[in-house]
Order: sequence, then C-alpha cells, then structure tokens
Amino acid sequence: MNNSAEAKLVERFDVVDLIHTKRDKGTLTADQINWLVDAYTRGYVGDEQMAAMTMAIFINGMEREEIRDLTLAMIASGETLSFEGLGKETTDKHSTGGVGDKITLPLAPLVASFGVAVPQLSGRGLGHTGGTLDKLESIPGWRADLTNEEFYAQLRGVGGVICAAGSGLAPADKKLYALRDITGTVEAIPLIASSIMSKKIAEGTSALVLDVKFGSGAFMKNPERSRELAETMVRLGKDAGVNTVALLTNMNVPLGLTIGNANEVRESVEILAGGGPADVRELTIALAREMLALVGHPDADVEAALDNGQAMDAWRGMIQAQGGDPDAALPQPKESHVVTADRDGVLVDQDALPFGVAAWRLGAGRARKQDPVQHAAGIDLHAKPGDTVRKGEPLFTMHADEPARFERALESLEGAYRIGDAGEAVNDGGPLIAGRID
Amino acid sequence: MNNSAEAKLVERFDVVDLIHTKRDKGTLTADQINWLVDAYTRGYVGDEQMAAMTMAIFINGMEREEIRDLTLAMIASGETLSFEGLGKETTDKHSTGGVGDKITLPLAPLVASFGVAVPQLSGRGLGHTGGTLDKLESIPGWRADLTNEEFYAQLRGVGGVICAAGSGLAPADKKLYALRDITGTVEAIPLIASSIMSKKIAEGTSALVLDVKFGSGAFMKNPERSRELAETMVRLGKDAGVNTVALLTNMNVPLGLTIGNANEVRESVEILAGGGPADVRELTIALAREMLALVGHPDADVEAALDNGQAMDAWRGMIQAQGGDPDAALPQPKESHVVTADRDGVLVDQDALPFGVAAWRLGAGRARKQDPVQHAAGIDLHAKPGDTVRKGEPLFTMHADEPARFERALESLEGAYRIGDAGEAVNDGGPLIAGRID
Repeated sequence: MNNSAEAKLVERFDVVDLIHTKRDKGTLTADQINWLVDAYTRGYVGDEQMAAMTMAIFINGMEREEIRDLTLAMIASGETLSFEGLGKETTDKHSTGGVGDKITLPLAPLVASFGVAVPQLSGRGLGHTGGTLDKLESIPGWRADLTNEEFYAQLRGVGGVICAAGSGLAPADKKLYALRDITGTVEAIPLIASSIMSKKIAEGTSALVLDVKFGSGAFMKNPERSRELAETMVRLGKDAGVNTVALLTNMNVPLGLTIGNANEVRESVEILAGGGPADVRELTIALAREMLALVGHPDADVEAALDNGQAMDAWRGMIQAQGGDPDAALPQPKESHVVTADRDGVLVDQDALPFGVAAWRLGAGRARKQDPVQHAAGIDLHAKPGDTVRKGEPLFTMHADEPARFERALESLEGAYRIGDAGEAVNDGGPLIAGRID
Repeated sequence: MNNSAEAKLVERFDVVDLIHTKRDKGTLTADQINWLVDAYTRGYVGDEQMAAMTMAIFINGMEREEIRDLTLAMIASGETLSFEGLGKETTDKHSTGGVGDKITLPLAPLVASFGVAVPQLSGRGLGHTGGTLDKLESIPGWRADLTNEEFYAQLRGVGGVICAAGSGLAPADKKLYALRDITGTVEAIPLIASSIMSKKIAEGTSALVLDVKFGSGAFMKNPERSRELAETMVRLGKDAGVNTVALLTNMNVPLGLTIGNANEVRESVEILAGGGPADVRELTIALAREMLALVGHPDADVEAALDNGQAMDAWRGMIQAQGGDPDAALPQPKESHVVTADRDGVLVDQDALPFGVAAWRLGAGRARKQDPVQHAAGIDLHAKPGDTVRKGEPLFTMHADEPARFERALESLEGAYRIGDAGEAVNDGGPLIAGRID
C-alpha cells in the first residue's frame, strides 16, 4: 500500500467507534463494514480489536443488511472464480459438517454424471468433524492441489472436482476464522453464515445446495438455530445472485456406518455401487436432486445413476484425473479393537459427538492444523439406533495405528451408546431430513 | 518461569472454555479468574483472547464475587506497598476524572496539614481528562518520580506526597487497561472498579475516599451508573479491609474557572489561600472532611485550615520536597484568544466535555502516551452557568503555544455554551455533590 492509500485507510473510521457501535447494539453501515474488513485484512485493525468486535457481534447479533455487507466485504478481500465459458451449468454443495459425513464423495460424481459441473472446493478437518480432502487422500496417488488449468480442464471433462481451495478466495474470512477459533466466537450465526457464503459466492457457482446440520454432532445443537442459520445463508446466496436451497438434516447420530477416512471412502464406493447404508444413500439422493433441479434437471433419475454404474464411472474418472487409483487397496489399520453388546436388546442411543471425538482421538482427525491424520484410523459401526443386538455381538470396531489410543477413545464413548429393551423409544432425534428452505 | 511451572499454567484451564462461560452469561470461579489474570500477565493468554473476554464481561457483566476475585488477582500480579511503621494514619483519595478537576492539588496538603499521611500516586492525562502530574509539572523544578526512600521520608515529614505510581503495582491492570483502551471496553463497571481498586488496595492505604463523577465530562454520563460504580468500588474496598467512602459529584460543567495545567495550579493556590471558585472550594472541603473522618478526625476545621495558611504551608513543603519552587512564576501562554458574549443575558449552558476536548486540542492534554503537554495551554473561564453576562464581555480565554490550534478548539466548542434570557433554567445538571455512599 502506498502512503496516501494508507493515510486514507487510517483516517476513514476509528475502529474503537465501530466497536462501540456494535457493543451498544447499534448497526454498522456498508462503508464501515467494508473499511473494517479491509483494514483488518491489511493489519491496520489488530487481532485484539477484531476479537472484541466479533464478541460484540456474537452477543448482540447483526441485522440482515450487516450480514450481507460483511459477506460482500469478505468476498472483495480476495479473488473470485468464474465459470462463464465453461459450457456447462455449475452446481455446488456445502455441508456445515458432521460425524461420518462423507456425502460429498458419492454426491459430486453422481451429479456430475448428468453432464453438469460440480466444483467442490473443500477443506481439511480440525477437531471432531472430518475433512473431505483428508478422506480422499486415503486413496493412493490422489492429490488435492490442482492448478487453475487442471481444475477447469477437469470441470470440462469428467465434470466433478473435489480439490483444495486456493488461498486467494476470501482471505479476510481465513484470517477471521482463525481468530474466532481461539477467541470463543465460532458459533455465531452472522459469522458462520458470512464465512461459508463468502467462500461459496467467491467460488463463482450459479447454484448452491446447503446441508445445514443440527444435533449433537453438528455446530448447531438446536434445530431452530440451524433453521435460522440456513435461512440466513439462503438469503445471502439469493442476494448475491446464487440460486440457493438448504436442507436441514439430523446429526444426532453418526451418518452411515463409518467414521474416519479410508473407511468412509470404502462406504462411499458402496453407495456409488448402488449399496451402502440407507441414511447415506437417502441424503446423497436428496442432495443430488436439489443440485440437479437448480440447474434444470428436476427429473434426473439419480437412483438409477447409482444403481447402473453411471455415477461410479464418474467417480473413477474424477479419482484418476487427480492421480488416484480407484482400484488400489485402501490403507489398512494396524490395530483394531471390537466393542460388543453386554446384553440382548435394541440399540437406543448412539450419540454423534462422542463418536466423532473418539474417531478423532483414534487418529482420524487432527488437533492442530499442522498435524497429519492417520488414514486407516476411525470407527466402523455394526449397528445403528433401532437395530436389535444380541449379547456378545460386535457393536462397533475401533481402528488405530497405535493401540495406546483405544483407552482415550473409549473414555469419550462412556455413556455415548446404550442398549435398551425392545419397544423402548429410540433416541435418534427424528428423521434424517427435517426441513427444506428455499 | 521454569518448564514445569509453565506446563502447569498451560494445562490448568482452557481459555476458550472460560471465554465461552462469560459469553454465555456464566460465572467464573476464583481459580479461573486467578489463572486467567496470571496467564494473561505472563503472555500465555493472548491479547485477542483477553479482548474477547473483556467484551463478554462488558456486555454480560460480572457477579460481585467475580469482581472481587478479579481485583484480588490483579493485586496479586504485582507488589504491594505498606504504610505500617509510618507512625501516621494514611488516607487516600481517587477521582474518576473530569474537566478542570484539580482537587488533588489543594486537597492533599489540606488533609496532610492535620498530621495524617496522604499518599497520592497519580497518573498523566490521556484524552480530554487532564493528569495531576501534568499539572504539577508546570511548577519549575518539581519532579514526579521519587525513590521509595524519598516517598516514605516525605510521608513522615510534610505528610502529603503526589507522585508517579511505580510500575510494580498491579501490572495486570496496566496491561489490561491498555488493551481495553484500544478495544472499546473502557466504560464497563466491573472493569473500571477492579482497575481502580486493585491499584488503590495495592498502594496499602487504610482509608480511601472516592470522587465518582457523572455527567458530560465524566466516564459515566449517567448518575445511576456512577452510583453503581461507586457502590461496587466501596464494596471492593471494604471487602479488602480498606475503610472506603464515595461521593457522587456532578461533572456536567467544568470544575472551577480553569482547564489546563499551569492555570489549574494557579487556581489551586488560590484555594489554598482561602479564595478561589466556590465549587472547587466546596468539593475540596467535602472530600477533606471525608478523608479526615475516616482516620479519626471527624471535627477537623478544614475551612479554617484553608483560610489561615495551615494548608498553604503544607503545600509549600510538598512542592519544595519534590524540588519545586512554590514562588516561581508559572509558564505563560505564547498566544491567547478571547471569546466574548454576543448578547446580554445569562450563561445557561457550559458543557464540560467539549470544553475538555477544546483544552486538549489547545495542547493541555495528549493524544498519545508519548506526547508532551504544553503547560501554559488551556482555557480560563470568565463566567459560570447562572452568571449574568453583557454583550462584548469576555466569556472565556483560550491559551496555546501555536495560534493554529484555536480553530480546532473552537470547532469542538460549537454549541457547547449558550447565553439565554434572564429567568431561563440553567443547564448545569444539579448540585455539585449529588450523593454519598459508605
């Protein structure tokens, strides 16, 4: 920045005045928000000042216009992608994250198999929710980082791309998210919504389906709060010209029968082969229908595409295009530990959060950004809530590279599952798909 | 800190959990607050984390016990003074700051002249409220920094000491105050109260009178909030074994007829000579009576001590003990600008805050810590609210070292004073002393 630009930046607003405004439940103008985000990105507004501001936003909230302006300011902090000239419609999906959520893996090839482009710029996991890139990196040879040329060529060709987001999209969001993580302001709706939507809008898609999760294993424990988040994000998308729909989905129990990395790839391939657990298939199909409907294919027969190999062909093409071998053996766990039922009955409880934490402690996730993940670590579930079990039968199997990890994983699972009597109510939080917002 | 002490500090609590507690309107335990203050002072908890915490405290408040624990933790972060073995009672006064507030200058020698020790550890001004040390540094030769030996010797001798606080008292408060200043969390009652009282309790006085101001020129605009602050501080003092009383005083109009440094010293000397403006004399006498009553002199004739030279003798002794010449000429302004009445009538408005800002802009205060003050800069008032004025008569005189400063000072005074008709209500916010809390 040259001196006169810097002087202009410095003089325009006083950050303490803006903090006072939000602290005292006032409303920030678009000019003020643009200035704040720009000054923060450039380092003229300090982390301690932005931390005070985000806490004030967390507690006092933001008006609809402020959330929109914050989102636009974060988009403007970096570059944006464009899919004009691709010759295909693009349709995108974003999940707010959950335990065993591997849906992107079967979903992207399934939707791409109908001739539309599915750019899925994804992240790595931190804490108990896994990362899509971590899962795919279980596949020998597969690489997450593509050049711009490779990225567009793959969209033109096979149509589906799951790869790492470049650092140029919404850098203000990256800086702000890292700050919120250490200052206790992650779960605020205005901040979550603007963070997700600034990246998605900057990615240049014309259609977007949001999978907004609620329940024990989700960011938002409470269905009403997840509805509020979904409504906020759908509005932000539409305000920015992106055709946006959200499904509200239940994350009180793990999704599918696998939590980890390699095991989730294996389960995704089962879905692409027309099999797999019913809940994973149901959600994959529902999201695929939404994504295709938004780009003019409301009647696409997505179930057939799973059952007849069409989606599997697209998956194989996508994996190969990024250097992966779809036929290679996946990493095998060094150590396994089976937990069995201690009585006959019905599995009535299987709480997503402790199962997510246990998989993370087994090595499937990372505690710090720079840590590696252990691709074969995780949990295979052998029963889902409502299933009848018999004493001595396996309930779940834990996998790890080091046996020392089993004890801490089991600690987090204390009280997380329970076998009840036949006829007892199953504590699964209700149906998988609880609502739709458009 | 050695490695095992550091490991203990790191592991004891998770700062993000503590932030969540306060963010979600919970209560922090004494252990958590002690850990937080210690970890922040040592730099293990970062400024951005403490900024989020203080904003959460600002908005959600603190329980009485939390404020006490925060105060004690800040005291424990540094050294404490002790006046045992001095052979005299000690009595202290603290003002929350205002425009034209020079009361410490006549008050300390007045009270000391009754044979008690008055240790006044003071600060320099920042922004529109002046600093006691800045004012006294107008006196040729006077120095604010004393060694511990000089400090105790002066308390034993003349009894009154106004000097700079050492950096060893409540270092956590110093760090936290600097952070609050740039992150918009200055005016929170739990934070103001613990900041003031941690320093005062660490100073080791046995009796303390608080001058808690409200109105335009004060931290607290609102009398109810200043009462809440006063009650909180009196409680903190008593909980720590300090006999504490507070007066609630009106800061809607400037105190006395001078705002600046050298001119405030001149006015203080007038008070010590038995003269001076009625409001300055009234407040000096009221605070002196409180300070003396707390240490067993409820019947001290403080008015006589102002009128018969007893207080002036103590003043001369105090100034000389710190190298100053009480008879030396004070700095003279290089430039002066007189503002006159534009009509006949009664002065009905004289708003403290803009007059304080104007004096600051004239050079009497500093914008940044490292800036010098101009000792002769400031404002002399020639009329107070309620006074009859005639067209063309001087209303006030501005002094500065550079004439360029007059324009910006006048800008801040636009609408700050008004001449009305005889009989019109005077807008002075009511009586000078509005309440007393013990």
